[in-house]
Amino acid sequence: MQNIKTIAFDADDTLWVNESLFRGVEDKFESLINNYLTESDIKGKLYKKEIENLKHFGYGVKGFVLSMIESAIDLTSGEIKGCDIKKIIEWGKEQIHHPVHLLDGASDILKLLKSDYNLMIITKGDLLDQESKISRSGLKKYFNIIEVVSDKNEMVYSDLMNRHNILPSEFMMVGNSLKSDVLPLVELGVCSVHIPFHTTWQHEIVNAEDTNGKKYKELNDIRELPSFLKPQIISKN
Amino acid sequence: MQNIKTIAFDADDTLWVNESLFRGVEDKFESLINNYLTESDIKGKLYKKEIENLKHFGYGVKGFVLSMIESAIDLTSGEIKGCDIKKIIEWGKEQIHHPVHLLDGASDILKLLKSDYNLMIITKGDLLDQESKISRSGLKKYFNIIEVVSDKNEMVYSDLMNRHNILPSEFMMVGNSLKSDVLPLVELGVCSVHIPFHTTWQHEIVNAEDTNGKKYKELNDIRELPSFLKPQIISKN
Repeated sequence: MQNIKTIAFDADDTLWVNESLFRGVEDKFESLINNYLTESDIKGKLYKKEIENLKHFGYGVKGFVLSMIESAIDLTSGEIKGCDIKKIIEWGKEQIHHPVHLLDGASDILKLLKSDYNLMIITKGDLLDQESKISRSGLKKYFNIIEVVSDKNEMVYSDLMNRHNILPSEFMMVGNSLKSDVLPLVELGVCSVHIPFHTTWQHEIVNAEDTNGKKYKELNDIRELPSFLKPQIISKN
Repeated sequence: MQNIKTIAFDADDTLWVNESLFRGVEDKFESLINNYLTESDIKGKLYKKEIENLKHFGYGVKGFVLSMIESAIDLTSGEIKGCDIKKIIEWGKEQIHHPVHLLDGASDILKLLKSDYNLMIITKGDLLDQESKISRSGLKKYFNIIEVVSDKNEMVYSDLMNRHNILPSEFMMVGNSLKSDVLPLVELGVCSVHIPFHTTWQHEIVNAEDTNGKKYKELNDIRELPSFLKPQIISKN
């Protein structure tokens, strides 16, 4: 890992808790719809609507709220009350302003790495929402570059490396999503580190065969990053 | 204007039509609500909700749709039908995918300027929506740098100049909004050009006294830009 000069981090569920907030709102959505009807697959139908709407609204809380509203109308055949739709919008506002809970070790590890590497955030979602979370996280001071993107794929990562004059051999990406933070980098021959979060959005889950033979590093915790980067230094201490 | 090396353009209503689409949807919203009640200030109440929601949702179509849904529920005391809320969401999807209508001369002028200047887009709104419009406009090839920002103020422009190593004396901003594209630049001592569009969102309108004594250039049309930049060359031809 001696060539690495720039380390990019995903943000949601890599530096702070995010997916759990969506899961919590989905639970509330299910309870709300259950007041109108008995339906065993409310969350499945909401998920289907979210995926269908990605091409219109992209990733993030606003698209999630719009998908919940559409699903609520469809599931209840238009019977959903205005006051209940207002509740869904309120959940969205609460989620947008929810306190940012850092994952254990995130702040300490960034502080440690900052002296040896250029640090970068690459996150996808709503622009204002992501900027607000980065600002409220208190971690902004550790990063040289912050990029909010509408999607994470090979082309986006290539463009970002070009834009910032980063050589693939000197770049590393760290994140919780195999689909977004790891596999596109593997295809580009870039070093990538997967640190799973306990909850993964269905859309980000990849099949076991998609990772077969792919070269990337899996760590359990962000605190294992320094010894992965410089095992010889760590072992000397 | 001999020092200018980088010209940044606003996109919506500077390079292509945008505000007119919002006005069209507002008309449909007013008609929809008029099916429920007689209220003379439907658009005024919607505007108030939009401004109140900026801190939650930022600029762009998704926030506009969410504000319309909230306003519809408030205005009808929750009586709005599910099928009518679905209509509002459909208007949003149509607006997001509406064909991009370039303003007269935009493409020709960018092509002309491209050989002498670094060209840049600085636009605010929803990330995916703005990227999609830039891509569909066919103008992307003229720009070296594209920046979608969540707001346009002095700090944002300063950060962008720093990020791209642009000197204020070598930078010029062109746009239709005095509030977003001109006045913050005037404060930074940067050259800016105002090209009004026939329709301006209420939120972007500034009072006459805010522009008093402020140094910026007003042009009627993007096609006047080359002669403003290089009057001596143009007059020779």
